[in-house]
Amino acid sequence: MEKINSPKNDHIKLAKKLTVKKYQKDYDRYLLEGPHLVHEALNAGVEPDVIYITDKYENDRELRPFYNKLVMVSKDVAEHLSATPTPQGMFAVLPLPHNSLPQPLAGSFLLLDAIQDPGNVGTLVRTADAAGVGTVVLGKQTADAFSPKVLRAMQGSQFHINVVSEDLNKLTGQLQRAGVPVYGTELNDRAKSYSAIAKTDQFALIMGNEGNGMRPELLAKTDVNVYIPMRGRAESLNVGVAAGVVLFHLLG
Amino acid sequence: MEKINSPKNDHIKLAKKLTVKKYQKDYDRYLLEGPHLVHEALNAGVEPDVIYITDKYENDRELRPFYNKLVMVSKDVAEHLSATPTPQGMFAVLPLPHNSLPQPLAGSFLLLDAIQDPGNVGTLVRTADAAGVGTVVLGKQTADAFSPKVLRAMQGSQFHINVVSEDLNKLTGQLQRAGVPVYGTELNDRAKSYSAIAKTDQFALIMGNEGNGMRPELLAKTDVNVYIPMRGRAESLNVGVAAGVVLFHLLG
Repeated sequence: MEKINSPKNDHIKLAKKLTVKKYQKDYDRYLLEGPHLVHEALNAGVEPDVIYITDKYENDRELRPFYNKLVMVSKDVAEHLSATPTPQGMFAVLPLPHNSLPQPLAGSFLLLDAIQDPGNVGTLVRTADAAGVGTVVLGKQTADAFSPKVLRAMQGSQFHINVVSEDLNKLTGQLQRAGVPVYGTELNDRAKSYSAIAKTDQFALIMGNEGNGMRPELLAKTDVNVYIPMRGRAESLNVGVAAGVVLFHLLG
Repeated sequence: MEKINSPKNDHIKLAKKLTVKKYQKDYDRYLLEGPHLVHEALNAGVEPDVIYITDKYENDRELRPFYNKLVMVSKDVAEHLSATPTPQGMFAVLPLPHNSLPQPLAGSFLLLDAIQDPGNVGTLVRTADAAGVGTVVLGKQTADAFSPKVLRAMQGSQFHINVVSEDLNKLTGQLQRAGVPVYGTELNDRAKSYSAIAKTDQFALIMGNEGNGMRPELLAKTDVNVYIPMRGRAESLNVGVAAGVVLFHLLG
């Protein structure tokens, strides 16, 4: 097996760049970290360009069919590639998925409007995946789906669910013309409790920015706004938790 | 107003220590960071020992009743005290709350069994607060409620809801003897879908460790185990999202 001991090796320098959006686009590839996630990718049938492992994973059975893609790296190299202080020692260079909106527009959608925290974006995709949402749409100013922190929180859901990037202003109109109702999330006079909305497989739910909520121009376009009544005294819920409560109600 | 320009000032050195559990216990105090959270503390009637502000907050109206507690600090000092790279410039030294279990044991409880990620612990307390849970119990090996990361994710819920630390093995028995059913969260043969559990104000819901779930000795003591049916392909939900879905169902 090939071995790389220096973080200055050109392949390693490239792999590290593939944690950054600009290079991910240029090379149409991203770097995925961690044995659990790399195994998920392989199980999902994704073809890796290369899998970097430390000696700890030399005898990993799940990697055997990919023996010709394995490259051993030193602890130094693993630390250089890792986004965490204590890397587990497995990384894969994978093709970016080329997803697109379903045509015709139908089914369930989770729309993320300027969700900035990568952990929240990852948790939202994971939650949508668990609830059975069809497509997650990342609007402008939403954290990129393939950054290391989003990938970690997403827990491999990018292999299960359609994740696309679109202009949400344009998309909400298209969805409505296609007969998919658009649900905003904002507490205002005309908002309805989520539990008063009938269970359905056809909807687009918009979650807004953690601090500021949905942008007003988007809010103005929604068919209904839903809120989660709070029995306690917290002012709000974490955006991932809020999406979970509403999605499991709608699709449950 | 007193001014402190050096991170080496003794008061500042003490304030910094009050982000660490050991010193928090010794001094019976903790350091809270951020204008939003400090305002929440003051609104909740908590008496600060001192409020450190940068000049940005010199004219903050909400701080006026506490003018005799204000100390101006330099940007350097704010950066030293802060747990974030870009501090907003407001900190308060507050007394630790002295909470205890309700007597007699009654109402709703969220029990955290070895939840290790501080962001998850904070989100769980915030979610319990929003849902109207009475008491959150932190078991052994659960992240401490007053660490900077937990405080940030908790969003001030420590001022609204009873948060205590207890041995969960002992507590589950006490709850059951008091007539409070204990719900575990684990997918096994006898587990029930959460939506099949009747809405109720009397329960203790246990959430287990992010990777390993509940400890078997605790799981063995539960009255019922609940699970969240997944329509999608995600293996699991984030622990905060899962708690939100179940709690808003039970208390909704």
